[in-house]
Amino acid sequence: MTDKPIDPFRAFAGFRWDGVTLMPYKEEGAAPFKSVTRQVLFHDPDLKCELRYFEVAPGGHSTLERHEHVHGVMILRGAAEVLVGSEVRPVKAFDLVHIPPLTWHQFRTTGSEPMGFLCMVNAERDRPQLPNDADLAEMRAHPAVAAFLAT
Amino acid sequence: MTDKPIDPFRAFAGFRWDGVTLMPYKEEGAAPFKSVTRQVLFHDPDLKCELRYFEVAPGGHSTLERHEHVHGVMILRGAAEVLVGSEVRPVKAFDLVHIPPLTWHQFRTTGSEPMGFLCMVNAERDRPQLPNDADLAEMRAHPAVAAFLAT
Repeated sequence: MTDKPIDPFRAFAGFRWDGVTLMPYKEEGAAPFKSVTRQVLFHDPDLKCELRYFEVAPGGHSTLERHEHVHGVMILRGAAEVLVGSEVRPVKAFDLVHIPPLTWHQFRTTGSEPMGFLCMVNAERDRPQLPNDADLAEMRAHPAVAAFLAT
Repeated sequence: MTDKPIDPFRAFAGFRWDGVTLMPYKEEGAAPFKSVTRQVLFHDPDLKCELRYFEVAPGGHSTLERHEHVHGVMILRGAAEVLVGSEVRPVKAFDLVHIPPLTWHQFRTTGSEPMGFLCMVNAERDRPQLPNDADLAEMRAHPAVAAFLAT
């Protein structure tokens, strides 16, 4: 968690920011993911959203999940394939991804560089849901999604 | 204003995004500023904040203003000098700036490239206030601020 900043300026270097702690993506064992870190860039009682930066190493991926709350995502570095509902799309730096409510989504780094993205999210939000076997079967009915989930 | 996206993916090219309208920064004559454009990247009834991208041409600047609401800013391109309260600081791509409540602030592009920044802000927010002569005199009591305002 980033404390409310005393210094309004936080300099960037090497995809780290002054005074921002590099954190694990989630609690160990809470959900399946691979090679992801998290930095909370803005977290402030006066702001109704948070801005976080996630970085996924080559070969890594975020958790396949859904939730009521929405994500506003901007890719900052590298390349990924992204699942949103029944769509799989390649993305690159500065592309935007909007994750609607209760929509299955996952980010997978492609290529040999780390992939990093900003994610804006309501400060008050529900917990993510993980897919059960029936959910996965439904997702795999879409060939592009089946191929994505098989990688 | 960006409508709620139908397509969750919005590709980036040349600091424009698919389906995002390039808008004037503010209504003409509403407040003093120079050479600024605005694009609303995320605006969604399910998100309690908006994410906007502002771009300020070389020699341009945002309005000198303050308001109750907070800004969470990330520089995306170029370089600027930024005033926050009594501080003036140079910033570059990916640096963060936090504008606290009721704090005078202004962004001025430095160098020959356009300067662009993301700004996260509560969707429901108060209107900006402009400085009166007494406010300006108080600001100019800080030599660095006086020098910044003179440019």
